[in-house]
Amino acid sequence: MERNLIIGQSGGPTCVINSSLYGIIKEVIKHPEITRMFGTLNGIEGVINDNLIDLANFDEENLELLKQTPGAILGSVRYCLDNDFNHISYQKIYQTFKKHHIRYFLYIGGNDSMDTVYKLNNFFQKINYECYVLGIPKTIDNDLLYSDHTPGYPSAIKFIANSINDIKQDISCYKNGKVTIVEIMGRDTGWLTAGSKLAMLANNAPDLIYLPEVTFDINNFINDVKKVYQTNKKVLVCVSEEIKDENGQYLLKETNTSDSFGHKQFGGVASSLAKIIQDKLHLPVRAIELNLLQRCFSSCMSNIDIKEAINCGKYAFKQILNKQTGKMVILKRNPHKYQISYSLVNIEKIANKTKYFPKEWIINGHDISDEFINYAKPLIAKAYPCKCQNGLVKFAKLPK
Amino acid sequence: MERNLIIGQSGGPTCVINSSLYGIIKEVIKHPEITRMFGTLNGIEGVINDNLIDLANFDEENLELLKQTPGAILGSVRYCLDNDFNHISYQKIYQTFKKHHIRYFLYIGGNDSMDTVYKLNNFFQKINYECYVLGIPKTIDNDLLYSDHTPGYPSAIKFIANSINDIKQDISCYKNGKVTIVEIMGRDTGWLTAGSKLAMLANNAPDLIYLPEVTFDINNFINDVKKVYQTNKKVLVCVSEEIKDENGQYLLKETNTSDSFGHKQFGGVASSLAKIIQDKLHLPVRAIELNLLQRCFSSCMSNIDIKEAINCGKYAFKQILNKQTGKMVILKRNPHKYQISYSLVNIEKIANKTKYFPKEWIINGHDISDEFINYAKPLIAKAYPCKCQNGLVKFAKLPK
Repeated sequence: MERNLIIGQSGGPTCVINSSLYGIIKEVIKHPEITRMFGTLNGIEGVINDNLIDLANFDEENLELLKQTPGAILGSVRYCLDNDFNHISYQKIYQTFKKHHIRYFLYIGGNDSMDTVYKLNNFFQKINYECYVLGIPKTIDNDLLYSDHTPGYPSAIKFIANSINDIKQDISCYKNGKVTIVEIMGRDTGWLTAGSKLAMLANNAPDLIYLPEVTFDINNFINDVKKVYQTNKKVLVCVSEEIKDENGQYLLKETNTSDSFGHKQFGGVASSLAKIIQDKLHLPVRAIELNLLQRCFSSCMSNIDIKEAINCGKYAFKQILNKQTGKMVILKRNPHKYQISYSLVNIEKIANKTKYFPKEWIINGHDISDEFINYAKPLIAKAYPCKCQNGLVKFAKLPK
Repeated sequence: MERNLIIGQSGGPTCVINSSLYGIIKEVIKHPEITRMFGTLNGIEGVINDNLIDLANFDEENLELLKQTPGAILGSVRYCLDNDFNHISYQKIYQTFKKHHIRYFLYIGGNDSMDTVYKLNNFFQKINYECYVLGIPKTIDNDLLYSDHTPGYPSAIKFIANSINDIKQDISCYKNGKVTIVEIMGRDTGWLTAGSKLAMLANNAPDLIYLPEVTFDINNFINDVKKVYQTNKKVLVCVSEEIKDENGQYLLKETNTSDSFGHKQFGGVASSLAKIIQDKLHLPVRAIELNLLQRCFSSCMSNIDIKEAINCGKYAFKQILNKQTGKMVILKRNPHKYQISYSLVNIEKIANKTKYFPKEWIINGHDISDEFINYAKPLIAKAYPCKCQNGLVKFAKLPK
């Protein structure tokens, strides 16, 4: 009797979500007890619509290129499964699983996607269908509980730290410079924005850093900027896209779209703050959003990130073969020297929950402490040596 | 009698303006007929204020690091010399030159900075002071006449092409994606925006590209986007920051600042276009400005760009020793295979003039032809192997 596997990718893609896929595939190949391995196109939606591809068809070159291919090669989705197991979507999922003799389901995603892992696992247990379901973490936001960090985060902060290093170098050219405000992703948490502080390792730290974990006070902000400008005649500010005021309101401009988990999609905080500085302090300003490149820039990915993402995939597959289910892989750090081991945590402890940036690592509301630097420094130490063609990073293609 | 040299940097910095400085210094060291070489801090302003540093004080490590240091290490300036040689600034310049026995002046800059070269050369001839003045090109905009391309441009389009390659890969993940509009620099010319088309070499070309050389028609734009979205369910648009309507008006939002040459400083075209698409077509949108990183991102600089910038510096110094004056270095390409030779052109032919993107390389108002790909492909072929420390590109420090 066939015992088959489906792998899916979900949520916002990262630089290394395909590395985890690579890790799984490389491990599955060694295990003849898995008859077929499928990829579901666009996450759980591909399962609902029976839209699968056979992953055995990857040739060796494209398999290797997965390690340096940003985005989600199987396609991603933001889809929230219904709370009611009688919903039609569960019947369709069950049909796809039965039809293809699926007994294993690995889902690579962030905290929203872990909600899908949680519900699927409960659903299969309820209907008494033998199936093992595990989650593999990925999110640039680094906001999954229990894991030392999440795959995707190291490459994102490597890009952010290098960008800030470059921007600070650039703006230092002028005697009377501007107030440059850089907007960084990260939803409710400041992990990514804190990454900007790593530019201090090249003596190019931002002057001011604002995370969403601290109530944003616009008057304090204006005073902070004024003070730095008086001394340096230029200011580099890094600010999280989701800073909030004392009433917990998102401070500034927001677009009127939201995803299917109800998250507002933001942007424009840097522009709005720049406008305020221009109006109140009459200083020249520039707003920069690092935007999508934070999660997909492939020319300076972290070597350790790719390695760990691969290992997460391998570990997850070994554990699912051991009949582990309803859990997510986490990364544990050796406290004495940088070394990562892998472990599992029950999914309900993680799904839809958020790991915030430690408040004790925030100084005076606008700076980041050395504890964070010690934590993050090993994550960006080396770049992955990408294969290029025609001067562009070469990406894997999905088998036909 | 001492015969000394001043080197200055001016205008918007690039990734390789310091490579040209490196080239000059390496060449000067071989020539004992130059007693001292000075760097002027913040371009011509440093000459006016007698604010010079001795460049012999660079140690070997920092000298080598100049090749991978973005920004203008001597400091830059946007300063437009007066047309009247009786202006006080010329007296001060003359005092500085006389005091330090300056007979040679090399100025690394774009078309505005060449205006300074032009005026200085005329001034010294008028007052009969023996001094040789040459310009060394740099601008990411690639808009200097006579030169095949300008140092700074290859690294800028290498970053742009890789960014577009990554962004297209990222946004391909979702079945029903967004209209993503990427705003690219380049002032009045489309050279940088055209660089986005190089992502086609990895099968990730933008869907639509709009340059300022073509009148921007908002209704055509909306129709173009609609058509692509109907087929692909996602659209990637690249647009120049200075597209203009049929009346030659800059189309959209502009900030109210302008530099001392009277150039308006722009931004926000992508946001404004995104808003229009959202309003008229009710599609989900995302606006991305590549912003400052286009001129300073150091993790994927073009190898050839750095080499040519160095060679421009060396060539300029050799020519100025040969008593050439009032000219700028240009790059000439061998038409049969990629090979660059260097030459000089009279500065009045270049200063304040603009080389536009060839209209015959623009297809249907929203695409770029293979002629451009053939022209630009060699410029981005290889990355410069940067030295890193702590995961960040290591930059040179100015000697004390």
